[in-house]
Amino acid sequence: MIEGLKFREIDGERLIVAVVCDENKNVLMVAFMNEEALKKTLETGYMHYYSTSRKKLWKKGEESGNYQKLIKVYADCDKDCLLFIVKQHGNACHEGYYSCFHYKLENGKFVLTEEYYK
Amino acid sequence: MIEGLKFREIDGERLIVAVVCDENKNVLMVAFMNEEALKKTLETGYMHYYSTSRKKLWKKGEESGNYQKLIKVYADCDKDCLLFIVKQHGNACHEGYYSCFHYKLENGKFVLTEEYYK
Repeated sequence: MIEGLKFREIDGERLIVAVVCDENKNVLMVAFMNEEALKKTLETGYMHYYSTSRKKLWKKGEESGNYQKLIKVYADCDKDCLLFIVKQHGNACHEGYYSCFHYKLENGKFVLTEEYYK
Repeated sequence: MIEGLKFREIDGERLIVAVVCDENKNVLMVAFMNEEALKKTLETGYMHYYSTSRKKLWKKGEESGNYQKLIKVYADCDKDCLLFIVKQHGNACHEGYYSCFHYKLENGKFVLTEEYYK
């Protein structure tokens, strides 16, 4: 695998945080990868993640058609987080929004908004 | 605390992933927060995190002067990740770069670059 990457113990699995942005720098989603998910992503050029709830690898868009074509990969200084730039097909969020970040904190509560990525 | 937020078991602590962007949508860094770090951030308007290596709360910029003034907070659909928009004073990265994401994957290795946020 890639030398120097630091996976953490997250919900009982060895995972690394994956931040996913489009080409316009909108943060689309954050998910986790195990080594296999990262390998599949780099091999196929399409984003794969590890689901902590279903406890298995999944290819983004496999069911929804909203797959993500990998463009570039960056890592942070600690090599414990990856930043993926992707071409998003359709919406990133399973709730039908372009980005998963469609809640904004206002007066102590999260309210629905799409202002961040509009 | 804020209703509905999901903290995960990360390296033995109850933490939530914090993605931090500037006003131009550059991803500056990714860190973790425990409930106290989130509370301090919202109360003071300056970013606080939980260090998994030092096992304690820290205020970003406390030693370096490179503090981050909070502008807005978003959450994702699962409420298990927070996106903070901040005004970054100086550099976000302790290695002297504006963003922590100054490595790019090229031919299977991470090489130093500042192209992402330039």
